[in-house]
Amino acid sequence: MNAEILCVGTELLHGDIVNTNAQYISKKLAEIAIDVHYQSVVGDNPARIKQCFATAFSRSDVVVCTGGLGPTQDDITKDVLAEYFDVKMVYDEESYHHVREIYSRFRGDFPQNNMRQTYFPEGAVILNNPNGTANACIMKGEADGKMKIGILLPGPPKEMEPLVDNEVIPYLKQFSNQVVFGEKLIVVNIGESAAEEMILDLIEKQTNPTIAPYAGAGRVIFRITAKAESKEKCLELIEPIKEELIRRFGSENAYVAETGKVEDKAAELLLEKNITVATAESLTGGLVSSKLISYPGISKVFMEGFVTYSNESKINTLNVKKETLEKYGAVSEETAKEMAYGAAQAAGTDLGVSTTGIAGPDGGSEEKPVGLVYICVYYNGKYNVKEIRATGSREIIRERAATTALDLIRSCIEK
Amino acid sequence: MNAEILCVGTELLHGDIVNTNAQYISKKLAEIAIDVHYQSVVGDNPARIKQCFATAFSRSDVVVCTGGLGPTQDDITKDVLAEYFDVKMVYDEESYHHVREIYSRFRGDFPQNNMRQTYFPEGAVILNNPNGTANACIMKGEADGKMKIGILLPGPPKEMEPLVDNEVIPYLKQFSNQVVFGEKLIVVNIGESAAEEMILDLIEKQTNPTIAPYAGAGRVIFRITAKAESKEKCLELIEPIKEELIRRFGSENAYVAETGKVEDKAAELLLEKNITVATAESLTGGLVSSKLISYPGISKVFMEGFVTYSNESKINTLNVKKETLEKYGAVSEETAKEMAYGAAQAAGTDLGVSTTGIAGPDGGSEEKPVGLVYICVYYNGKYNVKEIRATGSREIIRERAATTALDLIRSCIEK
Repeated sequence: MNAEILCVGTELLHGDIVNTNAQYISKKLAEIAIDVHYQSVVGDNPARIKQCFATAFSRSDVVVCTGGLGPTQDDITKDVLAEYFDVKMVYDEESYHHVREIYSRFRGDFPQNNMRQTYFPEGAVILNNPNGTANACIMKGEADGKMKIGILLPGPPKEMEPLVDNEVIPYLKQFSNQVVFGEKLIVVNIGESAAEEMILDLIEKQTNPTIAPYAGAGRVIFRITAKAESKEKCLELIEPIKEELIRRFGSENAYVAETGKVEDKAAELLLEKNITVATAESLTGGLVSSKLISYPGISKVFMEGFVTYSNESKINTLNVKKETLEKYGAVSEETAKEMAYGAAQAAGTDLGVSTTGIAGPDGGSEEKPVGLVYICVYYNGKYNVKEIRATGSREIIRERAATTALDLIRSCIEK
Repeated sequence: MNAEILCVGTELLHGDIVNTNAQYISKKLAEIAIDVHYQSVVGDNPARIKQCFATAFSRSDVVVCTGGLGPTQDDITKDVLAEYFDVKMVYDEESYHHVREIYSRFRGDFPQNNMRQTYFPEGAVILNNPNGTANACIMKGEADGKMKIGILLPGPPKEMEPLVDNEVIPYLKQFSNQVVFGEKLIVVNIGESAAEEMILDLIEKQTNPTIAPYAGAGRVIFRITAKAESKEKCLELIEPIKEELIRRFGSENAYVAETGKVEDKAAELLLEKNITVATAESLTGGLVSSKLISYPGISKVFMEGFVTYSNESKINTLNVKKETLEKYGAVSEETAKEMAYGAAQAAGTDLGVSTTGIAGPDGGSEEKPVGLVYICVYYNGKYNVKEIRATGSREIIRERAATTALDLIRSCIEK
């Protein structure tokens, strides 16, 4: 069974918003092993929408459409679906109550043009939308001797996503007897192309599971994805590949993380081993602490963070020596060490982590260029320093520094 | 002149990544008043790519395609374009040197299959890609008695985006005699639907400029966009609408910000008036400081940030009174005040800003539910406190708290 996604929305064509709907639905369909062959976007133009629908149904078994369920004359996706299956539009009493209920709660009188939201193609399964007036629908029928399914969903993600999770995926599951399951391997200390080349033979040879890389600031993620009749069977297929990948990258450079986030692995380890932590950040300016704090329950071990942007604050708050700053500069291994130690001392924690560097666009020199960053983790009486030379925008350099600091927490604990 | 965008990439169809390329190109084309009527995504499947190209050229003057310029047999967009314009593929010496140069720098030997990257449709303008091996191209010709333009770009955003900015947009500008220019109005203290209803008559009546809302954590942005023969003429059209919007929302709740970022407005004001600043964050955990520090040059006024997550750190670092914490709790107006004051004192700054609240998912009570946040700005001897009750995930609550804190800095300075 193959599917395609059609998103109706002029704001997408203007580039005002990014099409997260197409990604969301594609991902959910992939998880139940339904192949998506196309995604399309069209504006609120009836003639063009009609044309896109015709094209979509001519080449796909399932067409999932978002948008076009509103109350205006331009909202015609239901009419087009009725025409495709050659049925008439019929009034739905429950949808009338649904729309009226929402209007009475939030907006006052029931506007006459909202009556459009109470009509559906005859025979469609109507899906109650708890988050908006536009009920959704699923219609199954035969066309050109084949089974075709049309699914119409509202455009706003907060309305569309619960309908996909709670209605569409359970419905479509009956047509698929396979599941797709993946694990994410985070790889650090190795650049994207170097990492890819180390396992190119596997990437090219593997068909089930597949291995796909995703680069990002300071780390590469390899997703290992298997397709099988059950999640357990998927895991069995994934296991040997995962082991081989970790063997090649080295276990100090590669680890499995469900969310694919470096901070989650660091937070897990800190909580698991009950290691208290403090941060001392210069160029990252609170990115390290705010990423750590995004992990629920972290308050048990995260004690305090210091954003010591000025030299004075490094001296006063973290006890960095004035001589160190004068002799080596704020961006130096020595300052990073004193910052990490100072944070742990000031907050009374087991572990201190620091970042200091030049994020740019200004402030670089030949000796210390934009992108030079020193990171230190002080833990168990030992200093672990890492120097990186990042390239890219201010944001990218700061992100990479934060990711590297969070990963250094992990590797120091695992050591 | 109308355009459409075709993105080739299986990872998009799997939902592994979101299609930022389509958004980027759409936005840039909108700025030079070229209408985008469709966006499509197709996988690395030659037959389907060919079909999509044919459909695209049958309905659009310009087809901008990303992806499919790699060295493998599946990378066929150039061949398809040559076929469409009925020309042959020809060898390009400069592209050969380009690919060889990059290989010699990064990867060693020139692999034989990369020869594909040195052939282009005859007559195409070849665009040098400084960030990767895949050179891009633009091909103009006549088909069905109409002028058609095909533009082929590499898929990775860091390669594609500079080519769009430096080559494609300057090239396409010659076919457009209009520009589109917009201004962003940030609206705070008013919810999305309430704000929209306050100006619904304008949104519905206006065609040039148009007014479009974008909601986000803690603020709504209205983009006012005009189309005219020059940027100056656009600004003339925008001015009266902007004034009317500010009049309706109140100037304390609405302001223009080029980037649409609340933190940039706060940073601008701090720098302009040379007001030094320190932060004291609990639930936001460094988000406020890291957003402020994303503004280049902020080091002149940003002195220090404290992430005081534990009660001990609030007491030891910020001098929050133990009695205050015991009597009112960490999440209270009183604690927020002492945190803001304490941060300004500890760092010796003119202004101190604090956040304290319950981000969830746990930790809420009937009296103090998840989402309750107190924010305080201490400035000029005065305390400005704001209480918010946010809903949504941990991330959304933290984002909204940070946005509100940054906006409170602005409103306190402007007062």
